[in-house]
Amino acid sequence: MRTINIGLLGLGTVGRGVAELLRDNTQEMTRRLGCEIRISAVCSRSQERVQQLCPQAAWETDPLTLVQRDDVDVVLELFGGTTLAKDAVLKAIECGKHIVTANKKLLAEYGNDIFALAEKNNVMVHFEAAVAGGIPVIKALREGLAANQIQSVAGIINGTSNFILSEMREKGSAFKDVLAEAQRLGYAEADPTFDIEGHDAGHKITIMSALAFGTPVNFGACYLEGISQLDSRDIKYAEELGYRVKLLGITRKTEKGIELRVHPTLIPESRLLANVNGVMNAVRINANMVGETLYYGAGAGALPTASAVVADLMDIARLMNAPSQNRVPHLAFQPSQVKAQNFVSMDNISSSYYLRVQAADEAGVLGKIATLLANEGVSIEALIQKAVLDNNQAEIVILTHHTIEKNVKTAIAAIEAQDCVSAPVTMIRMESLHG
Amino acid sequence: MRTINIGLLGLGTVGRGVAELLRDNTQEMTRRLGCEIRISAVCSRSQERVQQLCPQAAWETDPLTLVQRDDVDVVLELFGGTTLAKDAVLKAIECGKHIVTANKKLLAEYGNDIFALAEKNNVMVHFEAAVAGGIPVIKALREGLAANQIQSVAGIINGTSNFILSEMREKGSAFKDVLAEAQRLGYAEADPTFDIEGHDAGHKITIMSALAFGTPVNFGACYLEGISQLDSRDIKYAEELGYRVKLLGITRKTEKGIELRVHPTLIPESRLLANVNGVMNAVRINANMVGETLYYGAGAGALPTASAVVADLMDIARLMNAPSQNRVPHLAFQPSQVKAQNFVSMDNISSSYYLRVQAADEAGVLGKIATLLANEGVSIEALIQKAVLDNNQAEIVILTHHTIEKNVKTAIAAIEAQDCVSAPVTMIRMESLHG
Repeated sequence: MRTINIGLLGLGTVGRGVAELLRDNTQEMTRRLGCEIRISAVCSRSQERVQQLCPQAAWETDPLTLVQRDDVDVVLELFGGTTLAKDAVLKAIECGKHIVTANKKLLAEYGNDIFALAEKNNVMVHFEAAVAGGIPVIKALREGLAANQIQSVAGIINGTSNFILSEMREKGSAFKDVLAEAQRLGYAEADPTFDIEGHDAGHKITIMSALAFGTPVNFGACYLEGISQLDSRDIKYAEELGYRVKLLGITRKTEKGIELRVHPTLIPESRLLANVNGVMNAVRINANMVGETLYYGAGAGALPTASAVVADLMDIARLMNAPSQNRVPHLAFQPSQVKAQNFVSMDNISSSYYLRVQAADEAGVLGKIATLLANEGVSIEALIQKAVLDNNQAEIVILTHHTIEKNVKTAIAAIEAQDCVSAPVTMIRMESLHG
Repeated sequence: MRTINIGLLGLGTVGRGVAELLRDNTQEMTRRLGCEIRISAVCSRSQERVQQLCPQAAWETDPLTLVQRDDVDVVLELFGGTTLAKDAVLKAIECGKHIVTANKKLLAEYGNDIFALAEKNNVMVHFEAAVAGGIPVIKALREGLAANQIQSVAGIINGTSNFILSEMREKGSAFKDVLAEAQRLGYAEADPTFDIEGHDAGHKITIMSALAFGTPVNFGACYLEGISQLDSRDIKYAEELGYRVKLLGITRKTEKGIELRVHPTLIPESRLLANVNGVMNAVRINANMVGETLYYGAGAGALPTASAVVADLMDIARLMNAPSQNRVPHLAFQPSQVKAQNFVSMDNISSSYYLRVQAADEAGVLGKIATLLANEGVSIEALIQKAVLDNNQAEIVILTHHTIEKNVKTAIAAIEAQDCVSAPVTMIRMESLHG
C-alpha cells in the first residue's frame, strides 16, 4: 500500500488536532483512501512536543529545510500568520510540494501570488480549513455548486463574535461584560481585535467572494465593521421587532459590481442563520439553479479544523494515488473495504418516546399507567393530562427517558389491555439530536 | 477546447432542468471547467420535446442504442424507476461510459450490482442528485468529512412529507386535508404512497448509511413508517412540550450494530432541523472529529436537481479533462478566467436599515425625522417610539425600506444636526436573506 508523507509546519492547536486525528482515525481513513498517510517531519519550537504528539516523525526547526525533505510529499502549513508561513509555502511550492493550509490571513492577503506560483509548478494548494473550520463549504462552492452562477454568500463565520452576540441577546448583558466572559472561557483571545472588529470574518468572506465570482482575492476591497460598538439595547429592540443581530460576512453580485462587506446585521428571526447560536458557524449561499443552500457546523477548534485539513490531504492523496478513474470510491470506502455489518432490529433500538393514551378520567389511572411502564423499565420524563374528552375520557401524554423499543412496546400492550384504556396508544419516537 | 459529450436518458422534469441549466449556465461552467459540455443524444418518447429543449441533439428512442453511441462519453440516467433505467445503466457501464444518475430507488435496490460492474469496467457512477436534491451532501459524506468516523446521519429528506407536516402544525389541519392541498399545489403525486409512507426517504437514508459506515447498500434492512397515521393533535401536544414532529431518515452506528429507520420523530424546537419547513430538506451528520454539521437546501425540483446532476457531470469532466493535478482550480475558475471585477463602494450598496434616534420627547419630532428621511428618498417600513429616558428624551427605532447607503448617511447627518436630537444615530444594516 502506498504511503503519502506529510511535513507538518506548526504543532499548535490545529497541529495537535491533526496529529490526534491521524492517530485515532487512521484505520477508517485507510479504508476510504486505499493508501496510508504518515507524518514524516514536524517543524516546531519544542522537540518534546514533537516526540509526544508525533513520536515517529523527525523534528525540524527550520521550515525551509522541512519543505525540501525528500520524505515530504505534502506540506501542512499550520503556523498561521504571514511571515514564516508565506516563505515556507512559497518555498514548498517551488519544490513541487502540495500544500494544505488553514491560514485565511495568508490566502486573503497573498493568495493571488501563492496560487499563481502553484499553477506554474503544477502544485495543489487546498484550504478548506481556512473558512468556517470543519464545514466543507469551500468544497461546496468550488465543486458541489459548480453548475450554478453564484449570486450571494452570507455567513456567520466568526465564532467569537457569534458567541458574544448570542450571550448579549440571551442575558441582556453589555458587550464588555460578555467579552470578558468569552475570554475567561477561551472563546476570545487576550487581544480580541482580530475577531471582534471583523478582520477574521473579512479574510474568510474575501476568499469565498473570489471563489463565488471568479475574481482575484482582494481583501483591500472588503468593508469591515465589528461588534464592539453594539449596544445591547439595539439587540433587544431588534428582537422585539422579530429580528436577530448577527455579524455577517456578505458578498453579492449586483449590476453595480460585487459587494464585499462584514458588519452587524439584522436578520428576520425565522431564517436559519438567525438561529445559529454560540460559537457555531453557518454559510448561506444563493445560486441561480439550486436556490438557497446552507452549511452549518463548528467554525473553529482543534479537531473540527483538523477534520477539514485532513479532508484536503485526502483529496490530494486521492489524486496522487489513483489519478484517473474513481478518485472517490462509489460507496465512499475502497471496494475491498465495504463490509456487511449487523443492523439493529427496531425492537432493540434505543430511543425516547412520546406516548398518548386515551383512558377513563378517573382516580388511579395515571398511577396504573406509570406502573405498567415502570414494570418494563421505562422511566417517565414527563406525564401530562392534556384534555378531557367526551364520555369522561382523558388524554394523557407521556415523554419517556431513553429505553429499548421492545420494552416500550410491551408496556404499550399492557396499557392497551387495561379496561380503563379506550383506544390504541399513539407512539412517536423522539430524537434529542445531541450526538 | 475539449468537449465532453453527454447522452441524456429521459426528458421529464429533471431532464428538462438539465437542458435548461446547460443552456443558461454554459459560459460560467466553461469558465470553471476549461472544457465544454454538449448534449449529443437524447432518449425520449417525444421527438418534438427533444427538438424543443435540445435542438442540437440527436433523437434516440432506444436507450440501449443511445448508450452505445460513439459520441456519448457520459450517460445521464434520468428515467427514474428500475426497469429501463437499470438495463440502460448496466449496458452503459459495460460500454465503458460514465454514469450520472438521480435515481435513488435504482441505487438503494440495485446499487451493489451497479457499483461492482462499474469497478470492473473502471467507470465512474455519480449520484449526488439521488439524495436531498441540490444539497451537495453526498460530496460532504464521501469527501468533505472523509477524515471522520461518521457516527450518525439524520435528515429531512422528503419534501412532500415535510410540507404536509409543516402545514399540519401551522394550520392545525388534518393529514387528509393537507395532503389534498399538497396534491393541488403539485407538491404531492396523485398516488402519494411513495413519499408519505417513507419509501423515498428510506431509499435516501439507505444510500447515506452505506456511505457513512462502509457497508453494502441494504434497503431491505430499513424500517419504514410514514406520516399518514399522524394525528394533528399529537403535533399540537408535541409543540406545547417544546417539540416539532418531522419525518426523519436516521442511521446510526451503535455497539449493537447499525440503526436504519424512517419514521415521524419529535425533535426539540431549538434544533435547526426542527426549523426546516415546507418542501425544504436538511441533513445533519454527526462525526467524531468535526462534531455536528448540517446541510440545507431544496430537496427536489427541476433546477435544484439539475444543479446536482451537472455538478456530478463536471466532477467527471474534470477527471477526463485534467486527470492529474489541480482537478479543481484553486480559485474555482480556470486561472485564465479569474478576472478582476468592480467592487461596489459602501455608499452605493443597497440595503434596508435599522436606525435608533435619541431625541427630545416632544410634539413634532417624529414628523421631523420622517421628513428628513423622505428628503433623501428613504422610505420607512416601521417607526416605533421605544422608550422614554431621563431628561425628557425618547428613543425612536426606525426600519427603512431598501435604499442606497449614501442616502441613509446623508439623512442621518441631517437628523443629527437637529437641536432636538441629542446623541449620534445608531445605524445597523438589515438583510432579509430572501435572494
